[in-house]
Amino acid sequence: MTGRPGRFITLEGGEGVGKSTQLAALATALRARGIDLIVTREPGGSEGAEAIRRLLLEGDAGRWGPRAEALLFAAARADHLEKTILPALAAGQWVLSDRYLDSSRAYQSGASGLEDADILTLHRIGSEGRLPDRTLLLQLPEAEATRRASLRDRGDSDRIGGRDAAYHARVAAAFAQYAAGDPQRFRAIDATGAPDAVTARLLDALADLTP
Amino acid sequence: MTGRPGRFITLEGGEGVGKSTQLAALATALRARGIDLIVTREPGGSEGAEAIRRLLLEGDAGRWGPRAEALLFAAARADHLEKTILPALAAGQWVLSDRYLDSSRAYQSGASGLEDADILTLHRIGSEGRLPDRTLLLQLPEAEATRRASLRDRGDSDRIGGRDAAYHARVAAAFAQYAAGDPQRFRAIDATGAPDAVTARLLDALADLTP
Repeated sequence: MTGRPGRFITLEGGEGVGKSTQLAALATALRARGIDLIVTREPGGSEGAEAIRRLLLEGDAGRWGPRAEALLFAAARADHLEKTILPALAAGQWVLSDRYLDSSRAYQSGASGLEDADILTLHRIGSEGRLPDRTLLLQLPEAEATRRASLRDRGDSDRIGGRDAAYHARVAAAFAQYAAGDPQRFRAIDATGAPDAVTARLLDALADLTP
Repeated sequence: MTGRPGRFITLEGGEGVGKSTQLAALATALRARGIDLIVTREPGGSEGAEAIRRLLLEGDAGRWGPRAEALLFAAARADHLEKTILPALAAGQWVLSDRYLDSSRAYQSGASGLEDADILTLHRIGSEGRLPDRTLLLQLPEAEATRRASLRDRGDSDRIGGRDAAYHARVAAAFAQYAAGDPQRFRAIDATGAPDAVTARLLDALADLTP
């Protein structure tokens, strides 16, 4: 891939859409096509951002107010971008990230009293507004997402996973709205059916970017 | 002080102006006048903000880029305000903070490629733009500040304290500019002379607020 810029791909979606499974399968499929790829995640993905992730996930649910929490996510993203994503892209690698900006938009705005515009402003200041080349949004019908999320809820869920169905529906609607607002960057992917079929849809949605 | 709102006072200034000494002396003098007062500091001043402080001060000088650093300071301030400052004020206490927003403006903007407007925007999003009732800015002639800062530089200085004279002069000029821009909130205090005389000047600058 020498001299050729890498592509920055993010995978987004609510709880229970199969994001982790698809992330691994997509990485394998892209590598099988000869693409030099790193897989990363948010919050985290760099030494500093992983330290911030620990701050965000440790402690009880009331440890951080929504404003401090949004700033911590933005700080982690700034570090992740600077230390991991941009260097990889500059070296010609592809970057596949499990969540990025759109998760902050969906989870930290709205319910918490912050506007989507505020989250975008934090991204402008923290990360010079850098967006992925493509964002793959995994979507499920609400009933199916709720069923899957409740199956996952075995007492080890994190602070986000433990919330109620109305919350998850609001998050899914927010993601759908962002995708509708930027069809150039987003592809909405049907996450129903066999995992292999979903992975094939994800690969199709990258066909214009792959060599 | 029942039923009477507390006052929020911040002490600002560059390295070597005697801020720590004056903070303690001012707290003692205010308490002697019957004012119920808490003393706090930034970054820090609450459990979460102190955890962020450790992230900021640990590690080498390149651990955080300027953007991630500015977001971490803003996150710490949001937590400090929500968990420590606002509850104390609501209970009728005065709050005396060693540094606050203006230190972020002076240290994180300018040199690091962020604008003062960006730091103020982070403060609006993180802390709803809450400003102190009074900011006391300790000022020294440049030569005196440099002399005092170099005397303090005994190998245990932090990342900020270890920088050069031009940097400190730029910080002092930034503070002076903020003070000139908001004479209602700021009082510029001459920090030369005997410590007792400086404390007296600080008390004078709060005369309109004290009972």
